[in-house]
Amino acid sequence: MTILDRIRSPADIRGLTRPELRTLADEMRARLIDICSRTGGHIGAGLGVVELTIALHFVFDTPTDQLVWDVGHQGYPHKLLTGRNGRMETLRTEGGLSGFLKRSESEYDTFGAGHAATSISAALGMAAARDLQGDDYKVVAIIGDGSLSSGLAYEGLNNTGHSDRDVVVVLNDNEMSIAPNVGAMHRYLSQVQRNPIYNRVRDKIGALVGSHEPLNTLVRKWEESVKSFLTPGVLFEELGLRYFGPIDGHDIDVLLDTFEVVRQRGGPRLVHVITQKGRGFPAGEHVEKWHALPPGHDPSTGKQLTRSTANPAYTAVFGKGLSELMSEYAEVVAITAAMPSGTGTGVVALAHPSRFFDVGIAEGHAVTFAAGMATRGVRPVAAIYSTFLQRAYDNLIHDVALQSLPVVFAMDRAGLVGEDGETHMGLYDIAYMLAVPNMTVTAPKDGTELLALLRAAVQHVSGPFCLRYPRAAAPDLVPPMAEIPATPYGTWEVLRRGGDGVAILAVGTMVNESLSAADALGTEGLDVTVVNCRFLKPYDEVTLAALLVGHKLVVTVEEGTVLNGFGAYLARIVESQEPSVRVVALGVPDRIIVSASRSRQLASCGIDASGIAARVRALHESEAIAG
Amino acid sequence: MTILDRIRSPADIRGLTRPELRTLADEMRARLIDICSRTGGHIGAGLGVVELTIALHFVFDTPTDQLVWDVGHQGYPHKLLTGRNGRMETLRTEGGLSGFLKRSESEYDTFGAGHAATSISAALGMAAARDLQGDDYKVVAIIGDGSLSSGLAYEGLNNTGHSDRDVVVVLNDNEMSIAPNVGAMHRYLSQVQRNPIYNRVRDKIGALVGSHEPLNTLVRKWEESVKSFLTPGVLFEELGLRYFGPIDGHDIDVLLDTFEVVRQRGGPRLVHVITQKGRGFPAGEHVEKWHALPPGHDPSTGKQLTRSTANPAYTAVFGKGLSELMSEYAEVVAITAAMPSGTGTGVVALAHPSRFFDVGIAEGHAVTFAAGMATRGVRPVAAIYSTFLQRAYDNLIHDVALQSLPVVFAMDRAGLVGEDGETHMGLYDIAYMLAVPNMTVTAPKDGTELLALLRAAVQHVSGPFCLRYPRAAAPDLVPPMAEIPATPYGTWEVLRRGGDGVAILAVGTMVNESLSAADALGTEGLDVTVVNCRFLKPYDEVTLAALLVGHKLVVTVEEGTVLNGFGAYLARIVESQEPSVRVVALGVPDRIIVSASRSRQLASCGIDASGIAARVRALHESEAIAG
Repeated sequence: MTILDRIRSPADIRGLTRPELRTLADEMRARLIDICSRTGGHIGAGLGVVELTIALHFVFDTPTDQLVWDVGHQGYPHKLLTGRNGRMETLRTEGGLSGFLKRSESEYDTFGAGHAATSISAALGMAAARDLQGDDYKVVAIIGDGSLSSGLAYEGLNNTGHSDRDVVVVLNDNEMSIAPNVGAMHRYLSQVQRNPIYNRVRDKIGALVGSHEPLNTLVRKWEESVKSFLTPGVLFEELGLRYFGPIDGHDIDVLLDTFEVVRQRGGPRLVHVITQKGRGFPAGEHVEKWHALPPGHDPSTGKQLTRSTANPAYTAVFGKGLSELMSEYAEVVAITAAMPSGTGTGVVALAHPSRFFDVGIAEGHAVTFAAGMATRGVRPVAAIYSTFLQRAYDNLIHDVALQSLPVVFAMDRAGLVGEDGETHMGLYDIAYMLAVPNMTVTAPKDGTELLALLRAAVQHVSGPFCLRYPRAAAPDLVPPMAEIPATPYGTWEVLRRGGDGVAILAVGTMVNESLSAADALGTEGLDVTVVNCRFLKPYDEVTLAALLVGHKLVVTVEEGTVLNGFGAYLARIVESQEPSVRVVALGVPDRIIVSASRSRQLASCGIDASGIAARVRALHESEAIAG
Repeated sequence: MTILDRIRSPADIRGLTRPELRTLADEMRARLIDICSRTGGHIGAGLGVVELTIALHFVFDTPTDQLVWDVGHQGYPHKLLTGRNGRMETLRTEGGLSGFLKRSESEYDTFGAGHAATSISAALGMAAARDLQGDDYKVVAIIGDGSLSSGLAYEGLNNTGHSDRDVVVVLNDNEMSIAPNVGAMHRYLSQVQRNPIYNRVRDKIGALVGSHEPLNTLVRKWEESVKSFLTPGVLFEELGLRYFGPIDGHDIDVLLDTFEVVRQRGGPRLVHVITQKGRGFPAGEHVEKWHALPPGHDPSTGKQLTRSTANPAYTAVFGKGLSELMSEYAEVVAITAAMPSGTGTGVVALAHPSRFFDVGIAEGHAVTFAAGMATRGVRPVAAIYSTFLQRAYDNLIHDVALQSLPVVFAMDRAGLVGEDGETHMGLYDIAYMLAVPNMTVTAPKDGTELLALLRAAVQHVSGPFCLRYPRAAAPDLVPPMAEIPATPYGTWEVLRRGGDGVAILAVGTMVNESLSAADALGTEGLDVTVVNCRFLKPYDEVTLAALLVGHKLVVTVEEGTVLNGFGAYLARIVESQEPSVRVVALGVPDRIIVSASRSRQLASCGIDASGIAARVRALHESEAIAG
């Protein structure tokens, strides 16, 4: 039986010796590599924080003390130590463990997260609550250096530094968040680590003052001034946090000793820990693709065993198409917020480096930066996941739409995202984009149409334009961009004309599902119309008017919240034009959708082909009875 | 004829002598005080930047060089110098000059804004566009110290500092943005200004190196190390911006000399300018209420001449009610993002200082901070304008709703906001809040109901709860909070039962308008039902089911975008329950609504009493013909 097997809760590690803790770290690393070879998931971050996780649970009295892990990418070792080792095989599966942290999953998961940079704000909130209630537990936020490019992290630091509350921020500095970091903060952190003078002086200070508390005023003042003279910790100290570090995040001794000291102190403080992402992973450590793994790779080599999709993902289609489009249009540029690989824009970076802008995890800035460019005749395409673009909602209204600036929003991961679970669902973009004046809202039915709409987007100079596409493989083989003309602005496409008075108006991914549904219904003798509503707003007035003659029932289908999405929007329009036509909206119900395969999620929402067919059949029958 | 009268464009000031520029400043200040005594508006910020505005237009070659003013609160002196002096009397009136800056108003307004902290990102975007296009003009962002608490400003600084692009950031430090600033950044800036050692050393360095470029490496290194040792500029220098300052923002000579030097240099640089908000205003300078003035005060004393409303504003009702409620419930706390006065929570700060949290201009942090508190049993009420809460959209989904945490969102300025214009409109909150799972969405019909819903909100422990209320006076006299019971959860209120099969389902402010409309229709013989839909989500299932018996036409009315708001949401529900009932949605049309009085805006949108009556009458008549 290994040491890891004997750990039922963090209390069990507090009796271990330091050599045992080091063995535990090795066991945890082996276990993580083994699990992730089968389940996939965010392995790189977890491997980097094995020792850090052990040290935090050793020194802090969890679950009374509150550990707030940022993002949750690094949460796997924490799961191993908090009673979930035996269920790790269920990671990222339906009914299994979440790929992130989740309050409903464990009392040790104090704050769920899938988006970056929330931990400091949440931790400060917990500390403020504690102080109000007169409690005395500790609150620790653990945040990666990549998250420090986010304004939310800064807002949290700024308020924490001002607060004088007992809050510990652990900066997990692996020099790489998802992609290599961007921004002055990153350069700044790199300098700290490399500064030998600082490190020598720091060692001497450490030897001098050691544990001889209380320090006399002179020594403390000297230490402060030397630190502010030589270290980058000064930036955090200027923000009001006492700085400790940098320390080696793989040295259990240093970690334990440092956290023991830090835990005793009060006030806002920051511990700068240097870790190596992917440490111990056989194929190497520093490569972006090991941020997350799909299931099915060889644990001994890290090589992918299977390919999950035949056609390229929409993401890849988009990246290649955008890069080709930028060869045609010199004024087009690409913007990503730390996701060159995730958004497929890595190829743009290679082909057009001077026109590629990775702003770091800073979605709000990405959009306002794009707006600034657009005022000068540049045509920015901002590629940001649907769920992350929520962070730039005010920017896209206030800075882009209200000024009618031509910024293109490429919203990847729109719709159901499968195993990533609720924090990453792209279910709200149709609702939040439709509400914005001047916004053109579109969704392609396949990869070729994605590029046709992208061409239409860059040709649309009078205002912003968004495209949404899913976390899925494109259903088609996509020709080169040069062969793809722009989709005519504001048009729909009637793909199937039925004779039974029923029309399915489908959005994006739902077009093919609806065609399949129509085929199935056809075999039963119900002949329905299917329309590709590739422009949600503005809608196709001519085609809609024609449809309203000869159809008595319109069924809309979208992969987004049904509550106030395209169906609700279209129903109002139909009501104003032809009140006798019924409009029934299908989509994702208004509840939290948890991890499962995307196809299972589609089925459970009733918006796969068979679900659509069943619903249309039932509606048609009730109409026939009513009529 | 004054000097100001002769200024048709900034080119005209470039021939003036320094004494003439000082006279111009005096004339501008007098003009601003005179204008704002009649028009109202954001006078404090403008009075603080008169000399700064002159210096920037003198040194920089506007409009070729791009000045990007943050927020636009400080834009009035800029308007005076850029051809709009003669139209200043039309400020903040329908068809007149905007109270903010606006691209469509002047070529000198390079980037419109009404929300804080967008300027650095926009300026960097312009600089990137310039560099791509091979141009060589200058880009200058002018940002207030209060905006520096916003994460967006930090994201912009972080990227700018990393970029090595030619960008000037002017930090207009008046030690007070809207309310006295909050956060470590503020404390930090205060320290800079007070540091006499730094100021002495800086003078010596200035004398030493002066204009003797190129500096030799030794002097430069010495300067750098002294600076990083002694100054707060180090924070900006660590972020990669070369720091200049602090300088006196009311000394034309110092401003001109500094900007001349700064303009010549390249790379990212920050000029720290100390100004006095409200300088020259007769009643004094440093008081929050002079941030913005309503029309009608005595220019010689600054005293208010008239009171515009008989009943207190919803804002005041909310603040007083919340403060009283906090005396009943020890677990309730209040959060504001730099708007204690604007949100009415200033009274809470006085009554319950330990349970009042002003986090600065940092809406995203405010919401995630609230979520953190909520995990520990504290019940936060976050009071944030509808338009500013757009900045926290991801936080309210990801940190609050997905975790079902009980955070209350008090959304002031929801709906049409009158003269503040398009950047401040609260038209999207119904749409964006309805889309969020677990969110309870409500709107009161009057001040008493606002407090009844607020009580219901703090009693609702299973998830987030939002209330929206307008920038208007409450129509009622509001009793003390202790006398107001909670509105029963999820209920509507049938206020008028009509016999003609027509029901108006009204939201919030539209309830009284609809009752007036019903009275008018009643005198014409059309007897309509009026329902107060105070809970938008969840809706009142029992009352709706009863209404669907006996009504053939439902007209919804809301003060928000009609495109996918409450009407669209309800239409889907009615369709699923009783397809034969027509639902027609009235609301704010899907276009940008510009400055005018709120009553004029309501009328132009067709949602005042007479507009509603006209629409219902026409619908009823067309139904009668069709029937």
